[in-house]
Amino acid sequence: MRGEQRRLAEDILFCDMYELTMAQLYHDAGLADRTALFEFSFRSYPDYGEHQAGYCVFAGLEWLYDWMDECSFGPDAIAYLGSLQGRKGRPLFDAGFLERIAAGSPFDGLTLEAIEEGRIVHPNEPVVAVRGPLLQAQLLETSLLNHLNYQTLVATKASRVRESARGGPVLEFGLRRAPDRGGSAGTRAALIGGADFTSYVGMSRVLDLEPKGTHAHSMVQAFMALGMEELGAFRAYADAFPDDCLLLVDTIDTLSSGVPNAIEVFGELRSRGHEPIGIRLDSGDLAYLSLQAAEMLDEAGFPDTTIVLSNQLEELAIWQILAQIEREANPGEASRLIRRLSFGVGSRLINSAGAAYLDGVYKLVAIEDGGRWVPAIKVSDNPEKTTIPGHKQVWRVYDRRGRATADLMAMRDEHPDAGQGITLHHPSEYQVRRVLSPEDISGMEPLLKTAYEGGKRSNPEAPLQELRDRRQADLARLDPGVRRLVNPHRYHVSLTAGLWGLKQELIERARAEQRR
Amino acid sequence: MRGEQRRLAEDILFCDMYELTMAQLYHDAGLADRTALFEFSFRSYPDYGEHQAGYCVFAGLEWLYDWMDECSFGPDAIAYLGSLQGRKGRPLFDAGFLERIAAGSPFDGLTLEAIEEGRIVHPNEPVVAVRGPLLQAQLLETSLLNHLNYQTLVATKASRVRESARGGPVLEFGLRRAPDRGGSAGTRAALIGGADFTSYVGMSRVLDLEPKGTHAHSMVQAFMALGMEELGAFRAYADAFPDDCLLLVDTIDTLSSGVPNAIEVFGELRSRGHEPIGIRLDSGDLAYLSLQAAEMLDEAGFPDTTIVLSNQLEELAIWQILAQIEREANPGEASRLIRRLSFGVGSRLINSAGAAYLDGVYKLVAIEDGGRWVPAIKVSDNPEKTTIPGHKQVWRVYDRRGRATADLMAMRDEHPDAGQGITLHHPSEYQVRRVLSPEDISGMEPLLKTAYEGGKRSNPEAPLQELRDRRQADLARLDPGVRRLVNPHRYHVSLTAGLWGLKQELIERARAEQRR
Repeated sequence: MRGEQRRLAEDILFCDMYELTMAQLYHDAGLADRTALFEFSFRSYPDYGEHQAGYCVFAGLEWLYDWMDECSFGPDAIAYLGSLQGRKGRPLFDAGFLERIAAGSPFDGLTLEAIEEGRIVHPNEPVVAVRGPLLQAQLLETSLLNHLNYQTLVATKASRVRESARGGPVLEFGLRRAPDRGGSAGTRAALIGGADFTSYVGMSRVLDLEPKGTHAHSMVQAFMALGMEELGAFRAYADAFPDDCLLLVDTIDTLSSGVPNAIEVFGELRSRGHEPIGIRLDSGDLAYLSLQAAEMLDEAGFPDTTIVLSNQLEELAIWQILAQIEREANPGEASRLIRRLSFGVGSRLINSAGAAYLDGVYKLVAIEDGGRWVPAIKVSDNPEKTTIPGHKQVWRVYDRRGRATADLMAMRDEHPDAGQGITLHHPSEYQVRRVLSPEDISGMEPLLKTAYEGGKRSNPEAPLQELRDRRQADLARLDPGVRRLVNPHRYHVSLTAGLWGLKQELIERARAEQRR
Repeated sequence: MRGEQRRLAEDILFCDMYELTMAQLYHDAGLADRTALFEFSFRSYPDYGEHQAGYCVFAGLEWLYDWMDECSFGPDAIAYLGSLQGRKGRPLFDAGFLERIAAGSPFDGLTLEAIEEGRIVHPNEPVVAVRGPLLQAQLLETSLLNHLNYQTLVATKASRVRESARGGPVLEFGLRRAPDRGGSAGTRAALIGGADFTSYVGMSRVLDLEPKGTHAHSMVQAFMALGMEELGAFRAYADAFPDDCLLLVDTIDTLSSGVPNAIEVFGELRSRGHEPIGIRLDSGDLAYLSLQAAEMLDEAGFPDTTIVLSNQLEELAIWQILAQIEREANPGEASRLIRRLSFGVGSRLINSAGAAYLDGVYKLVAIEDGGRWVPAIKVSDNPEKTTIPGHKQVWRVYDRRGRATADLMAMRDEHPDAGQGITLHHPSEYQVRRVLSPEDISGMEPLLKTAYEGGKRSNPEAPLQELRDRRQADLARLDPGVRRLVNPHRYHVSLTAGLWGLKQELIERARAEQRR
């Protein structure tokens, strides 16, 4: 797609058709300016099959705001919409409607309350609440979901990789197998969620990080084909980057060729006053090879060199590699080796292998009528898909140890009082509840804060490091069982008694409607 | 990301860092202008776990060309690269190198030969061959892989959905859970691979297709909350789009509320001289509900209305729904119902659920030395990961019935002669070969054709329908066993005896090198 086409497709028309047809109808029905409240939530944690997330890292919000700030119903989009015809050849959208949307900016009436980007979030709770004219709020649906679902998915996976890698640097290498330009968002999300650096030069630049990378097999192959062999390739690389020499050692054979050749070149570098960075292993049994290579590097006098591992890595693979190293080596040797490892993580991180998408939804929860909020509900045969109605706040409840123990949804005009003790109701199962006495609670924090209003952000864009700090602070306050990579403990997302009652009342009303 | 940042990140810096460090080295070593040959191939068909692809639909090429045409080492990119420093604070890239890349356009020396976009392709064969100055060819790596891997993955999934849906229209609905801007490429790939239309307005515009979509649950919820009930919502929709009325009937209860209300509104429409389009079912047992809804619509006098199914659909789900309809209904009723179905396919198509990425690679296979090609190889302990060296052509061999029976890789100066009979060698297992006599062969077609040269496409961009036609023509010539959704028959990708010999020779040479 050419740049010019991209700008057409990904401006205001980065939406689904039904948002526009509904907008026309709201215009016709006099409902376009009626104040509505939509919520973004997701239904379940990513489940990777043999392992599952116990929390998500929220990401994507700043890029949503960028899109909202930059898009508009320009003359060109309006002309296109005006040209669309129905089955009978009549225009789908009428002139009055097109005039309405062409005036002003598409989202200037909206107020967004959101949990901060980078923070830990959980299913079925509002992560973003969008309030404003029904037409504008409806129109935001697809773009909001698109921006938030994917980045949250990848940030979550990255946080798991980060935990599996313990302290070791995590390098994001995924652009080549990323979903086209989605690679930019995926890279950012990986960096929010736990990756330290990326090989993607353009995003390194935008995020002001050092881009990482050295050389490919092809460089060694080219030198070999020209009769200069692996050693010649390594020498040429060391000549070009004497202070930044990291060599990929598996083009021929890691232990019989790559590592010995690397050591030879490292010696030459040192004799010229330079210290090498290290080696990269990209195939084979990475635990075994890193143990052997480390020993060879130690013996040759390079105990401080880094060993970068790559090749289909993700959280369980890294976990297993480190466990194998601990089993095969003595404790001192194992922990010294683990401290010198870095992890290059590509395809499986940026594509969230095993869990293809986050199932985020955008649901109407209330609409204004006669100056008050009327709660709205979508009933489903599956109780977990029934929406939680009304204008809400999410309170994070911290236990005596200062750990997050539950997220509690309350109606906006309730203020749960820790001093009175709190009853947590399961969102759909009546019998399931939990009582916290005042002494069980060390604090309660409202998570939804006004973030976008009057066509602009309420606060300046937060730098990457701030998002990472939020994640780390939240992780430190999360139960280790919830952070577990496999079969994590279930975090409690609950309702107040008041909200639980409202939900039941609306379900009853919908059922009565259905019987009529 | 703001548009201005996006243009910086996704122009020439849409690459991995190591391509630039290798480029600097090639410059230093006097190899930058050495003619090299790289190939794009993928290693395996997407495997979705419980089902597997037996072929891939190639997609992404035209968008790669667009990127190549538009990107450049502008002053800004050069300044950025010039600012990058190594560990010791010295510039990573030197002035001579930066001057070199700033001159001319980044890919003007490259010739690409490619299998045409839209065609069926198979693992381990060169799908694109890139020939030209080593520096330029290396620099293309990440962007080429990024553009081709994802679109091929999604086009392949779409082709499977298309097959499961039999003749029924397939509507792409995935933007909301697509990977950020990757949704644009994914939508295009879905439309090449088998989707008929998309709900994504912007891409519909770019590809000149009618965007599809009607309304969401939120519309019905809003009317209900305001006391106008589902019937009021349906009436309002029918008023706005009397000739294009398709109603989502599962907001309250499909059979007791949605379908009866839709029928009432359809009757009102008809009395005003309009015919409805139909209904959409988005939850519950779609086979059972579509049978019941069809009966209700028939009885009410609307036997020609469409029934759109959606909700986590993909190839096996559609296959099972149609099988269930055939089991539950009598044959005439079942086939009549199946003919009126459409399928809205979203998250699972655009994210290729179950198979997160295509494992495409970009490998050096030859480099010019003294006016001749020197083949290059990357040896691996895993025989399937050892590259197939040299300058090659891929021949598609058609059997007596006119069906594709094998893809045969040959050296470029070989011309396999069907009149002599052909021996097909397995790429890595010596004992596995197959002999085709002249009468077994109805035709042989060279698949790699010059597609990009001298900084531009060799042919004008092919319209979407042409890509779809290529896919359909190739599918018609594919064995039904290879097209099977589960456990497909394995298509033969083979080598000529000459190429097999070359590969063994280079493996031996690499092993000898390693022993030295």
